[in-house]
Amino acid sequence: MKELVFGHKNPDTDAIVAAKAYAFLQNALGNEVEAVALGTPNEETKFVLEHFEEPAPRVIEKATPEVEAVMLVDHNEEQQSVADIADVTVTHVVDHHRIANFATAAPLYYHAEPVGCTSTIIYGEFVQNNVEIPAKLAGLMLSAIVSDTLLFKSPTTTAKDEAAAKALAKIANVDLEAYGLEMLKAGTNLASKTEEELITADAKSFDMGGKTVRVDQVNTVDLDEVFAREAALRAAIEKQSATEGYDLFLLMVTNILDSNTRLLVVGEPKEMVEKAFEKELVADKVDLPGVVSRKKQIVPQLEAAFNA
Amino acid sequence: MKELVFGHKNPDTDAIVAAKAYAFLQNALGNEVEAVALGTPNEETKFVLEHFEEPAPRVIEKATPEVEAVMLVDHNEEQQSVADIADVTVTHVVDHHRIANFATAAPLYYHAEPVGCTSTIIYGEFVQNNVEIPAKLAGLMLSAIVSDTLLFKSPTTTAKDEAAAKALAKIANVDLEAYGLEMLKAGTNLASKTEEELITADAKSFDMGGKTVRVDQVNTVDLDEVFAREAALRAAIEKQSATEGYDLFLLMVTNILDSNTRLLVVGEPKEMVEKAFEKELVADKVDLPGVVSRKKQIVPQLEAAFNA
Repeated sequence: MKELVFGHKNPDTDAIVAAKAYAFLQNALGNEVEAVALGTPNEETKFVLEHFEEPAPRVIEKATPEVEAVMLVDHNEEQQSVADIADVTVTHVVDHHRIANFATAAPLYYHAEPVGCTSTIIYGEFVQNNVEIPAKLAGLMLSAIVSDTLLFKSPTTTAKDEAAAKALAKIANVDLEAYGLEMLKAGTNLASKTEEELITADAKSFDMGGKTVRVDQVNTVDLDEVFAREAALRAAIEKQSATEGYDLFLLMVTNILDSNTRLLVVGEPKEMVEKAFEKELVADKVDLPGVVSRKKQIVPQLEAAFNA
Repeated sequence: MKELVFGHKNPDTDAIVAAKAYAFLQNALGNEVEAVALGTPNEETKFVLEHFEEPAPRVIEKATPEVEAVMLVDHNEEQQSVADIADVTVTHVVDHHRIANFATAAPLYYHAEPVGCTSTIIYGEFVQNNVEIPAKLAGLMLSAIVSDTLLFKSPTTTAKDEAAAKALAKIANVDLEAYGLEMLKAGTNLASKTEEELITADAKSFDMGGKTVRVDQVNTVDLDEVFAREAALRAAIEKQSATEGYDLFLLMVTNILDSNTRLLVVGEPKEMVEKAFEKELVADKVDLPGVVSRKKQIVPQLEAAFNA
């Protein structure tokens, strides 16, 4: 019986690529699996797909009635997944995030590792199953690793991520440093984007202490360029929070060249942000040197503050 | 930093053995991990530990303040875990059950497969990491697989379970059939148990159509030996059902030699049992040839009858 595999809503490069890679692996293992996506590729992912001449996956709104069973990559929390996730059986998950808001009625295959990128874990599954990775797919997979680890500068990076990326670069015949930087810069073309797009493209929702917390990340090579638009960004966040019911919205603006983040905080309770990072907000903003990872350096700290 | 690894409360052979096996693997990989247990070994597990001259793991009530981080094997649901599970970080899970009532604040290692036994999955991790399994540990691990799969007769058994058990039997130099049967028989020493113990040791509750249905399983090599105590068992069930509020109580008495179950049914609505298995109860009993698995051969059928 055919299954679909997909990454999270607002897909980033890993969400798109991991689905394609896992579909390839599953088909090689004899299962009928199609990679789809819960949204269109962002600027960086478009660059990656064009570079390796690969098509974007079909976008779905619902998994039913097309299939009864699905595989999730690069996410597990239901609010990040397909709208009708409760109506299908999840048979496989490959992920590198915390586990939350996830439950099944039956046993399943679940492979999570605390590494920088889902594609690193999937690379391991290719090796373990002795399935050869085509050059184009290797190029996509190393792009996902470069994207998630910001070229190995994020603290989420592990030795496994670097080793996988290097092995994939060999297969794809790509200069990792040169290509990686070009790719990351392609993803930071912010001038062409509306504020609405900036606060939506890489945003995720979390339930913390009964509040809906939204955390968005924008990568840039120039913080000032982004904060020149602060008033408009704030207005867009307030509007979206009212419509979508977000209580607290954190906009992470991350400089990928020096690995620092400036946070813009809208909504309440703001004191949770101050508690989480032990720093005062000044005009709803705070600089977090060395912070580049939502998953490792923002979400757990915030959660600890809410639970304290 | 040292971590503890343990299986679920009311430990069975897999819960005890998987903890020992995973501790061994983690130590071989350079991590300081001690196997402990959330209860004392049952009759079967005692036989296994004595047979391979291995000590029972230390029993803990709480994980803190001894450690800050733990690894779970053979379970993930918090009500099956250590009392203070909410106060520690779960870094690893290896399991073969559904995922429910489980959440973490940070990414972790999680390896679940829909196979018959956790020790089968851990065997795979030894192979993958090229870590040699000592003969004694191989004996324990094959015992866990025999226990969970009832010597491959349970419908939860997969090809992976059989292959792992055979490979382990070679390492342990054990005759799988002869030893497996001896071990299963050792677990069926029912004479020493009270009726209260028999109806409690392996019982689980289910909500079906607004009724609380309790299903207990007792393994034996002699149905008559158990049913000689029918009046006392029935009295114990009636007493417990009144105290605990069970509407319908099914006692599965399973002959592990020929893989048949005789059901004793106490409470109402009894007609749901007749509907589920399309057989009439005679003096509140019914024989179910080939039935050994509560999870696969009793609960879904009963649930379908209640929902029809």
